[in-house]
Formats: sequence, C-alpha cells, structure tokens
Amino acid sequence: MASQFRFLHRVEFSETDMAGIVHFSNFFRYMEKAEHAFFRSLGYSVHPRKSGEFQAVGWPRVHAECDYLGPITFEDEVEILLYVARKGKKSLTYFFEISRILQDGKQLCATGKTVAACVTLSPEAGKMVAVDIPDYLTSQISEADPVLFTPKS
Amino acid sequence: MASQFRFLHRVEFSETDMAGIVHFSNFFRYMEKAEHAFFRSLGYSVHPRKSGEFQAVGWPRVHAECDYLGPITFEDEVEILLYVARKGKKSLTYFFEISRILQDGKQLCATGKTVAACVTLSPEAGKMVAVDIPDYLTSQISEADPVLFTPKS
Amino acid sequence: MASQFRFLHRVEFSETDMAGIVHFSNFFRYMEKAEHAFFRSLGYSVHPRKSGEFQAVGWPRVHAECDYLGPITFEDEVEILLYVARKGKKSLTYFFEISRILQDGKQLCATGKTVAACVTLSPEAGKMVAVDIPDYLTSQISEADPVLFTPKS
Amino acid sequence: MASQFRFLHRVEFSETDMAGIVHFSNFFRYMEKAEHAFFRSLGYSVHPRKSGEFQAVGWPRVHAECDYLGPITFEDEVEILLYVARKGKKSLTYFFEISRILQDGKQLCATGKTVAACVTLSPEAGKMVAVDIPDYLTSQISEADPVLFTPKS
Repeated sequence: MASQFRFLHRVEFSETDMAGIVHFSNFFRYMEKAEHAFFRSLGYSVHPRKSGEFQAVGWPRVHAECDYLGPITFEDEVEILLYVARKGKKSLTYFFEISRILQDGKQLCATGKTVAACVTLSPEAGKMVAVDIPDYLTSQISEADPVLFTPKS
Repeated sequence: MASQFRFLHRVEFSETDMAGIVHFSNFFRYMEKAEHAFFRSLGYSVHPRKSGEFQAVGWPRVHAECDYLGPITFEDEVEILLYVARKGKKSLTYFFEISRILQDGKQLCATGKTVAACVTLSPEAGKMVAVDIPDYLTSQISEADPVLFTPKS
Repeated sequence: MASQFRFLHRVEFSETDMAGIVHFSNFFRYMEKAEHAFFRSLGYSVHPRKSGEFQAVGWPRVHAECDYLGPITFEDEVEILLYVARKGKKSLTYFFEISRILQDGKQLCATGKTVAACVTLSPEAGKMVAVDIPDYLTSQISEADPVLFTPKS
Repeated sequence: MASQFRFLHRVEFSETDMAGIVHFSNFFRYMEKAEHAFFRSLGYSVHPRKSGEFQAVGWPRVHAECDYLGPITFEDEVEILLYVARKGKKSLTYFFEISRILQDGKQLCATGKTVAACVTLSPEAGKMVAVDIPDYLTSQISEADPVLFTPKS
C-alpha cells in the first residue's frame, strides 16, 4: 500500500521570473508532477493511451493551496514529497513538502495541499460527475501516518 | 480608497491542457494579473522602471489557494474580481472571484485567496525582510466590506 | 479580404524570467495570441464550441521561428502585427512584427514567422491529415502586400 | 571537447494543450533545457550562484526556430539531442533533434535551431553588449560533425 512518494526536479530557467526565483504558480505544477509520477509508480496513468486500459476517470482539482516559506532558484534540485492525507470514496487529498536539496540535508521551501475529485463523463448528464475511485487504485493507496507531515488547515 | 478591482481576460490556447480546460495552475496567474492591474490602477508598479520612482518593495506571496467550482475553456471571457480582504501592517490579503462571462450574466468558476508580504532587500541581512507597506499605498487602499465576497477559511 | 491584424498585449509578470525580460519562448505565444484573435475577427474560432458551427479543422504549426532584436520587459504594452505572407491551398504562412509601444512611437523587438497546416481527423487513417482550407476562410483571407513587412528567409 | 549532448525529459500534463499534444511553444523550452544541461555538463552554469565563479556573461537567443514533424503527448519520454552547429567568436549555434522514445527505437518529432549570443553588461553603454565567449567555455566546446545532423536552412 502506497501512502507517500518522493519526486526530484531540477529547476528550469523558464520556471523563474524577474524576481530571480521560481514563480509562485509553478509550485502547483511541481505538486502535479509528483502526483502524476505517484500514479505512474502504481502502474497507472492519469490519461491512459490505450482505451480500455483503465476505467476512464479524470482527476480535476477542487482545491489547491500552498504556503511559501522560502525561495527556490534556478538549477536548484527540488524534492517534492507527496503524502496521501485522506483517501475519500470519491476524492484524494494530498499534502506536499517542497524542499531544496542542499549539500548537507535540505531546506523546506513550501508546504502544499490539493484535493482531486475522481470524475467520469456521464453521457446522460453530458458533463463530468463524481464517481467512486476505482478498485485498482483504492487497493493500492492508503493514508499516510499524520505524524509524518505537518497538518494544514 | 480602493478596495476592489475588476479585471477581464480572454483565455488563450496555451492556457488550456489536454483535458480541454484551463490548467488549474493558471488560475493563480489570473489572480496575479488582477493584483498587478490593481496596483497599476493606483499609479503604482510592482516592479518600477525608474529607480527612485517608488520605494523598492517586493510582494512575494506567502500563501495562495483556490477552490475550483467549474471549468473555464478556450476563448472564454473571464472576469477576475479582486477584493482587499485584509490590510495588514506588512501584508495584504486578497480574495478573488473568477467567473466566465455569459451572454446573460456570469458563472462563478473559482474563488481564491492570496497573501502577499511587503518586503525589501536588507543590505545588512543580505536577504529580503518584511517592512511596513509604504504610505503611498496604504493611503490609497482600504479593506472591502466582507459582505461583498464569500469568506474563505 | 483580411491580410493583416493588430493585437495588443500587456506583459504579465509570469511571462518574465530571471534575466528580467520576457522569456524567449513566450514570443511564440504572442504570435499565437495574434493568430487566434485574427481568426476571431473573421467570426471564426480555432476550436469551435458548437459542433457543426464550422468544419472541424485544426491548425497545427509545422514551422515557427523568431529573430530577437531587443528585450521586452514587465508591463510593456506590446503590439503584435500579423501579416498573411502566403495563402496556400492547405496551409497559411504568417509573418509577425512584435514591438514595444513607446510614448512616441514604437520599437521593433522581434520578427517572426509561423506556418500552420489545415488538418482534419481522418477516420480511415486514424490520424490528422492535411485538407484544403475551408471556403468560409479562404473567401475572407488574402495575402498581404510584401512591401509591408520585411521578408524572412 | 564537447560537441553534442543528450537530454531526456518526461512530458508533464501542464505542457499539453487542449489539442491533446505538447504546445508548440514548449519545444523551445525543451531546447533550452538541453542547452542548460549541456552547460552544466561542462561544469558551467548559465546563471552562476557565487559571484566571481565565472565571468558574468549571459546567453540571450537572437534566433530560434523549429520544424514540427509529429506530435508529442503526455507522459512521452522525449530525447533532446543537442549539436554545436557553429562556434562563433561571440555566439553559439545549436541544432536539435527532438524524438519520442519508443519501445524499439525512437521517432523524430521535431528539429530545431537556436543562436545564442554571448553578452555582458557594459557599465559604459548601460546595456548588454556582445563579447567574446570566455576561454573556459571555448576550450571545452567544438563544432559537431555536420554529417551527424540534418542541416537546417
């Protein structure tokens, strides 16, 4: 059962802004990178290539937040730690810790949280509707021990 | 005294993702667009061109969040309403309502909140430190009436 | 018959990089903004909302290039001039002039060129194939007089 | 002497657009990723952290172009091959081949070219001026054999 995941990313030039640091909106892209890599680690893709490979569910965010503790700069190696904070029937809540890797340890630069709803296209409704998370995912995912990460409001 | 601001934006193709909707991280860029246009409406630039024009303060976000209520799609005309939720001594808290303009009215697609700290480079500390918001800004900005917007946690 | 189009854009903070100027990749997004606004000015959308509104053609780029003459910075008002350089049977070639608006005139900062192919999904081939540009577009578009813009190799 | 470099990248969701493929502007970001990783492989950073570490030169692009041969999609593993096409006195010209890694081989999806000028800030001129490429770089870089890549106009 997977409850956390670690993803490393090298900061690209195009992710910085004229203040010389990673633009605040890109922290959310970092969270998404980790989330999708977490799914891949379970043998699952958010957007399957071959029809029929997985039940066709999508994962739109219904909430996203970030607390910024310190700047991240060009060419930093960044660690994104993902924790499954809550496994709902129709949604997953993730907590994130985003740190700069230093020569001796790391520095926490941001904490984040996203809530992703499990949805599918309803032909009757003609729009996306929330559905139960498929078994092949719930059977692999468990909630992380809350002592591992700082809870967020 | 300015306490709210309205900004319109036409959704660009590059802001969408393969799900056919505006990528969730771009909602934070929309909030920033409105924030900077709000500053411009006060005759102030976040990054002044001419040195000496304003006291050199920056506005890094210390918090950003968004609740997603409905999708926004290519070529939608989007209204971003900014409210000054809190005018602190060294920070400003904004609330945002992001809506699609419809032929008859509008549809609320997201609410957001950001907290921006007023900082300046301290030559002694060799880093950014929080400072009081300059008078030329505090004298122009007031908090919006809370009944105008939905409070966020 | 439309052969050129003018589009204005205010540079956003998130479009800059740590060099303090607009990231070079965003010049291509500026060209696309102008291209799509040009289409809208003809009553046409690159991605129609209502099925049946237009023949379902797409416009992937097969070529894009840019020559950079000078930097563009935050909050600059930018003019993107689009010229129809060539109206082919199955493709459109655009030339672009990207300038900063100054108090007295403007400064040319880049020239660009893109070639967009007119394609549609072929059910038989199972992929996109080039098709003739639909009549409702060819009837509205003509090539610009080459003396108007600097030819590009 | 280094004359080519290979960089691998996993396509992120936020790099796609509503056409379901990587947005054409992101191919230029891929070229830049490879260029900067090439510099890092030489023990050099485009933006040094410690003053005095390198002579303070920048590398703005004066030209960038891309020919698109096929789409790249979400989660594709992409190979970006960089070739030093020309080592000038004050500029470097790169050719790129961007391919999707397949189970048995790879598929060329785009070829590109960028020209980066070596510049430094002139206190007298008050702006960036072209300068000779520093010795610690020219001594490490050589032009790739032209037979290795398809020449571009």
